[in-house]
Amino acid sequence: MTLLHIIYLIAITAEAATGALMGMRRRFDLFGLAVVGTVTALGGGSIRDMILGHYPLGWVAHPEYLLFTIGAAVCAALLARRLQSLKSAFLILDAMGLVAFTVIGCDIAATTGAHVAVVVLMGMVTGVFGGLLRDVLCNQVPLVLQRDLYATVSLATGVLYVGMLHFDVDRDLATAIAIGAGFAFRLIAIRYALGLPVFDAATHSGGEEGDPV
Amino acid sequence: MTLLHIIYLIAITAEAATGALMGMRRRFDLFGLAVVGTVTALGGGSIRDMILGHYPLGWVAHPEYLLFTIGAAVCAALLARRLQSLKSAFLILDAMGLVAFTVIGCDIAATTGAHVAVVVLMGMVTGVFGGLLRDVLCNQVPLVLQRDLYATVSLATGVLYVGMLHFDVDRDLATAIAIGAGFAFRLIAIRYALGLPVFDAATHSGGEEGDPV
Amino acid sequence: MTLLHIIYLIAITAEAATGALMGMRRRFDLFGLAVVGTVTALGGGSIRDMILGHYPLGWVAHPEYLLFTIGAAVCAALLARRLQSLKSAFLILDAMGLVAFTVIGCDIAATTGAHVAVVVLMGMVTGVFGGLLRDVLCNQVPLVLQRDLYATVSLATGVLYVGMLHFDVDRDLATAIAIGAGFAFRLIAIRYALGLPVFDAATHSGGEEGDPV
Repeated sequence: MTLLHIIYLIAITAEAATGALMGMRRRFDLFGLAVVGTVTALGGGSIRDMILGHYPLGWVAHPEYLLFTIGAAVCAALLARRLQSLKSAFLILDAMGLVAFTVIGCDIAATTGAHVAVVVLMGMVTGVFGGLLRDVLCNQVPLVLQRDLYATVSLATGVLYVGMLHFDVDRDLATAIAIGAGFAFRLIAIRYALGLPVFDAATHSGGEEGDPV
Repeated sequence: MTLLHIIYLIAITAEAATGALMGMRRRFDLFGLAVVGTVTALGGGSIRDMILGHYPLGWVAHPEYLLFTIGAAVCAALLARRLQSLKSAFLILDAMGLVAFTVIGCDIAATTGAHVAVVVLMGMVTGVFGGLLRDVLCNQVPLVLQRDLYATVSLATGVLYVGMLHFDVDRDLATAIAIGAGFAFRLIAIRYALGLPVFDAATHSGGEEGDPV
Repeated sequence: MTLLHIIYLIAITAEAATGALMGMRRRFDLFGLAVVGTVTALGGGSIRDMILGHYPLGWVAHPEYLLFTIGAAVCAALLARRLQSLKSAFLILDAMGLVAFTVIGCDIAATTGAHVAVVVLMGMVTGVFGGLLRDVLCNQVPLVLQRDLYATVSLATGVLYVGMLHFDVDRDLATAIAIGAGFAFRLIAIRYALGLPVFDAATHSGGEEGDPV
């Protein structure tokens, strides 16, 4: 078991817990929390594999991952009161997960022989789409499309990682550098509340709400 | 044509009708009702097959299923006034469908050689995710994540069914017992309004709405 | 490069721009606009391919398509003020895209040996589901399920196209006729605000909001 694999297991546990905490806001029952936690943790990788036709999916081959996500969701539900004070711990675990998911996603996409742009994109899908699915299930506009240098951290991590592999940097070294740099970038983005520009059409649009053009 | 297959056709018809009735609340047009009815009826099995890489999907191989779902959606739209008084009939057909979908889903997952935990889970996905997709299309928080012993009935049915197969119970007998027991469990859950515990984070959380942690 | 391919590239560019404009209403950041634009443009074809198990997906094999969609989304964000006055141009490009997506979707489904009903349906999925995914990401009830002869134009185009191929009409001729007729049908539908009947359950339903039956 590699260090990356251990980081992965920590990351899916943390992501499942954050998914369950959001599901509690929607008054999900225990089953609902297990679903939204699992989808948050494993949804990004699942969409990546379904896009690439890369079967079997990770958790289908390793159903023990489900124990981590379901267990984390149940624990989060029981311990929610205390977890509220652990917000910064979650942000750090989530940042770790984001960059680990990205590197793993790039690796898996690369094994399918996809174009390098698709490899980087699949890293982002792995890192970001779990949270996007969580927000769809919770019936809210996906946070990741609105706020923060979150996806951008994933993109930078993927470009750095794939770029190093392209220049024949040793894989373990490239993994360590990409994860370290991406993690630092994400923490800086959180600390200084960095974000991408937001364009507001509403202020200069006369269009009706819900109108596509 | 087996009894299970007949139950399946009744179930997709009933599920499509319930999907269409909910679509009418959102003022969907006739096409929208056909889509939401079909997605409600066939969406769970489609997601299962796309997760497993099990091609072709059921309704792609048997497009005549679409006649049942589209027909049911159109009839539901025309007869909505009368169907309101058939609420208990729908609940019974839906309960029948839930357990039939679960058993069929387990069977199909088992043919792919998946781990027994994945087999049971794919039974639940088959039984439950059609309604979940319906709620996403109708832009509401998925009911199945919030209420009732619905998914739990599917889980119990799947565990019972797969357990019996594991101990070499005859397949037809196992099917009959699992469907009978699951159906009875679901009716009891409806009758006594049983549900899983709900954890409410909102009351002891100071977090901003939409905030992931 | 065929005429159909050129129309396709124009169509994904236009669809990506409309997706980005809607994302601006939700205050998506630049990344979010790129995602929602790309999903609007390429989501319908991606769902078609994942339903059919038709790998690799179009944009995985041709990642240069992403340049069109991401570029269009960014340009739409920068030029939004001016684009508001181009509403009719967008409606025309969107109509062009709808029929082109439909014909291309039918062609690809036919190569998998699917039943003719599935071929026509996959044409509709290609034409319509990008906009449906856009609305799910923007957390609103899918417009395409509620309004206009939009999906119906896709259905008519697909039936006409597949019907001509069935009667051995030359493929290029069938493509031209189907696109021309579908395009005219869509423009007429827009001009006269044609739509399918909408059934309103709410007026004669005593059911609770969110109640499935």
